[in-house]
Amino acid sequence: MALGQSYTNKEYKKIAKDLRIELFNAQRACIEKKIPVVIILSGIKGSGRGKVANFLSEWLDAKFVRNHAFLAPSDEEETRPTMWRYWRHLPAGGETAVFFGAWYTQILRNSRFLEKHGKESMLESINASTQLEETLSKSGTAILKIWLHLSKEEHDIRRKYRKQAKENLYYTPNDELLDDFYDEIMEVLQETIPQTDKAYAPWAIIDAYDENYRNISVARALLQHLNQCLAAKEVHENIKEATQKDDNQIEMNTISALDRVDLSQNIEKEDYKEKLEELQTEVARLTFEAYQKGISTTLVFEGWDAGGKGGAIRRLSTCTDARITRVIPISSPTSEELAHHYLWRFWRHVPQAGYITIYDRSWYGRVLVERVEGFAQKHEWRRAYNEINAFEKELVSDKNIVIKFWLHISSEEQLRRFKEREDTPWKQHKITAEDWRNRDAADAYKLAADEMFLRTNTSYAPWYIIPAESKLFARIEVLRIYRDSLKNALSTKQNIKVESVDLLPVQEIIEENESVEKEKKDKKKKKEKKEK
Amino acid sequence: MALGQSYTNKEYKKIAKDLRIELFNAQRACIEKKIPVVIILSGIKGSGRGKVANFLSEWLDAKFVRNHAFLAPSDEEETRPTMWRYWRHLPAGGETAVFFGAWYTQILRNSRFLEKHGKESMLESINASTQLEETLSKSGTAILKIWLHLSKEEHDIRRKYRKQAKENLYYTPNDELLDDFYDEIMEVLQETIPQTDKAYAPWAIIDAYDENYRNISVARALLQHLNQCLAAKEVHENIKEATQKDDNQIEMNTISALDRVDLSQNIEKEDYKEKLEELQTEVARLTFEAYQKGISTTLVFEGWDAGGKGGAIRRLSTCTDARITRVIPISSPTSEELAHHYLWRFWRHVPQAGYITIYDRSWYGRVLVERVEGFAQKHEWRRAYNEINAFEKELVSDKNIVIKFWLHISSEEQLRRFKEREDTPWKQHKITAEDWRNRDAADAYKLAADEMFLRTNTSYAPWYIIPAESKLFARIEVLRIYRDSLKNALSTKQNIKVESVDLLPVQEIIEENESVEKEKKDKKKKKEKKEK
Repeated sequence: MALGQSYTNKEYKKIAKDLRIELFNAQRACIEKKIPVVIILSGIKGSGRGKVANFLSEWLDAKFVRNHAFLAPSDEEETRPTMWRYWRHLPAGGETAVFFGAWYTQILRNSRFLEKHGKESMLESINASTQLEETLSKSGTAILKIWLHLSKEEHDIRRKYRKQAKENLYYTPNDELLDDFYDEIMEVLQETIPQTDKAYAPWAIIDAYDENYRNISVARALLQHLNQCLAAKEVHENIKEATQKDDNQIEMNTISALDRVDLSQNIEKEDYKEKLEELQTEVARLTFEAYQKGISTTLVFEGWDAGGKGGAIRRLSTCTDARITRVIPISSPTSEELAHHYLWRFWRHVPQAGYITIYDRSWYGRVLVERVEGFAQKHEWRRAYNEINAFEKELVSDKNIVIKFWLHISSEEQLRRFKEREDTPWKQHKITAEDWRNRDAADAYKLAADEMFLRTNTSYAPWYIIPAESKLFARIEVLRIYRDSLKNALSTKQNIKVESVDLLPVQEIIEENESVEKEKKDKKKKKEKKEK
Repeated sequence: MALGQSYTNKEYKKIAKDLRIELFNAQRACIEKKIPVVIILSGIKGSGRGKVANFLSEWLDAKFVRNHAFLAPSDEEETRPTMWRYWRHLPAGGETAVFFGAWYTQILRNSRFLEKHGKESMLESINASTQLEETLSKSGTAILKIWLHLSKEEHDIRRKYRKQAKENLYYTPNDELLDDFYDEIMEVLQETIPQTDKAYAPWAIIDAYDENYRNISVARALLQHLNQCLAAKEVHENIKEATQKDDNQIEMNTISALDRVDLSQNIEKEDYKEKLEELQTEVARLTFEAYQKGISTTLVFEGWDAGGKGGAIRRLSTCTDARITRVIPISSPTSEELAHHYLWRFWRHVPQAGYITIYDRSWYGRVLVERVEGFAQKHEWRRAYNEINAFEKELVSDKNIVIKFWLHISSEEQLRRFKEREDTPWKQHKITAEDWRNRDAADAYKLAADEMFLRTNTSYAPWYIIPAESKLFARIEVLRIYRDSLKNALSTKQNIKVESVDLLPVQEIIEENESVEKEKKDKKKKKEKKEK
């Protein structure tokens, strides 16, 4: 990479003439193909990031371009996972987002030379960044990262000039600080760039000394990357995916985790009432404590149709304060949600510190209904397991709780409930042709659920399969598990870092239930003894 | 209103049986008719707001119900107009939003008895509330306001019990404070309720002593209001609106404001370059100062197609820092935006304190394209003038700036630019069949624009008609006006309150331009003299 290159105005005009049209056409093609484009624009102060953004708005169709700067995080951002602020501004298909610095500013903030360390270590930031870029690019986002380079001498000259002209406008204290750290920034870069320079999200290091040369280089890098992404998209579309049915034959040596659940578990009405009140009182108090300590909860409810999700959620949300609880029922996405990465709509509702978000159905739709119905292609749902694990890891970071419930009922019980719904005026809307269709596909769903348990049952975000043949039993179980998780989170030391994706064997889910069952039986025995 | 009423469980069950079905059906009808429902749930601590919210989730189809509590505003909310936090959570058509307290908590906060006064006086809060409710209800939102009443004795009993049971969970300091102020709250209510009890957004005062009676009363009040709204909607749909064309004959005694603009105004290239640099440098410095002082800017660009909006915006956004500037191009709304009030999509982008939002086309589409093309009905766009004035008043409150530009060109110049666009590869996309259609409807647009100037040219958010026959002249004018407005805002005392909607006569817009023109001529003369 040679530095200090330049173009005369005449040279610039000559090159620009065709390049502009080519770049414009590449953007049109991305709009047509609904490819989201993320340009991360970084560089040292004075390298002309703002000017490059303006140049891009001029050459591209500005109606599809948005700039986003990330100054100090707002408290809404500060109290959510680090990546939340980027997710909320990700472009829809066809849009171009120019992110100033974005997560690379985060890496700088977390690097050792800044006095005020961020929440995470630099390495953690780098890992989270590559993970995010991989997730996005695999789902078809074009990501280009630009570093506008200035030599130290040039940087110092420009800085001096700005000072003399009183043009030193620092928008954040960080801004001013970073201006003093040329050498340190370069050091961080030399570590960061090789680690994050991937084929799917490459770095373009651009000599920013000469304005003409800089703009032409940015345009060329962007054109090249967009064309690559467009070509990849085309190849992709031409490969006929194997039909969905073949894909369902995953190798499962064990019998289904669901078949091993003891559905006979029950609770007597009197016991239920007593236990319910006790648990609800406890959960009310514990969630208040969690609110004060800033521990957030993400609860996921999945399971068979008519499994009793709604009832269980209501028993839980009755005791948590409505002001900190959000129930998000997941149905078909809006056009805005559809135009984004499939996880975007769930990121929108991620709880703030101390808050509770209950998802009634969730991102697991990707590996359940979307897989079974063929809405997602094989490579898409396959990839989703890792993406989901990474997403949940973000949610858990530090001290937050993620719990996933699968409400399990037998086929016979489901049929009985379907029929009951059809006979109850205010439940009729709950039963549709789709529910009957899903019922027919129960085997495929079971297979999908088994693979899901296998691949997403992590130590930090475990699955709980709840025997829900008895609605009352299931409700108590859900409350009990939530209470225990809260207690645990409140008692353990804060800032426990999640190091890696630890998968739990599915066996443990079953054992968990079995031990609960045993406990119940023991209790019953004791009670019977007492009564005797 | 009798207090202390109650239902036995048996009575409750008997009433509930039919009522539940009726309420459920009313909700289904609202979903079908895409009517958004807002329930404001307020009451003193211990009156069971949370329980009522849970009760509603049980009786209604919970998939369409969202609860929203408004604890202390986040900094993202604090740095925007007061109503922003409510707008962002307004329900889409068919959804029901249960707002805890909402703007009535705001009124309490701003009332005289609380030590920490809010930003505004109580009266201002009440006015803003009724304005918002009127805006929403006129566009078809069903709004019901519920006050759960407890006698002072009962409140004290419950409070004592909570203390003993250690169930006094205060989620905010305010929460705790309000618990001490029974009498004062009642006093505020006696003032607020009569002022805000409107047919379109009625209050239901409900005796909350007995749980059964309370729930039944809430259900009845909601049922009654939903049925009223449904009936109103039906009447509405049956009235055939007069065709759009008849409506365009508004009485304008004067000739069009646009016809009186001197389009011959021009600037020489040399002058332009000099002036541009001077203005851009000034604007850069002033916007930085505004950022530091928390003064936000909302800029609106309207005008004929090919009037040069994009170029003018770019000259402006080049000099404001990209990190605090957001350009929002307005095209067709997303499905999520379509499902909300038409102003909702603009509220989303309202700038934070110190930031700049530039709307490339705006909410004025309601009274321009939607009027001319008949997308909005007559009563809808008629109403929009007031709604827009109220919206802009919210934006301006205190010290923020709202400036509206109309870039005006002659029909001949437009034709020339259309043709030029067709001949330039990267401009071809800018010219579509729609542009040619709009051109054919130029007279109707002119009429609509004239009425718009007449009705929305307020002292706090003035219109500037920019002669844009010369692109260079227009760009300089836009920058000059923005610079002057910034200077003005920075020099005047802070916290100037906007008292009412003051309309400026359209004449002033023209005079403004004429005086500028005169100034130019004088300068030219001086220059010529000098040269002599």
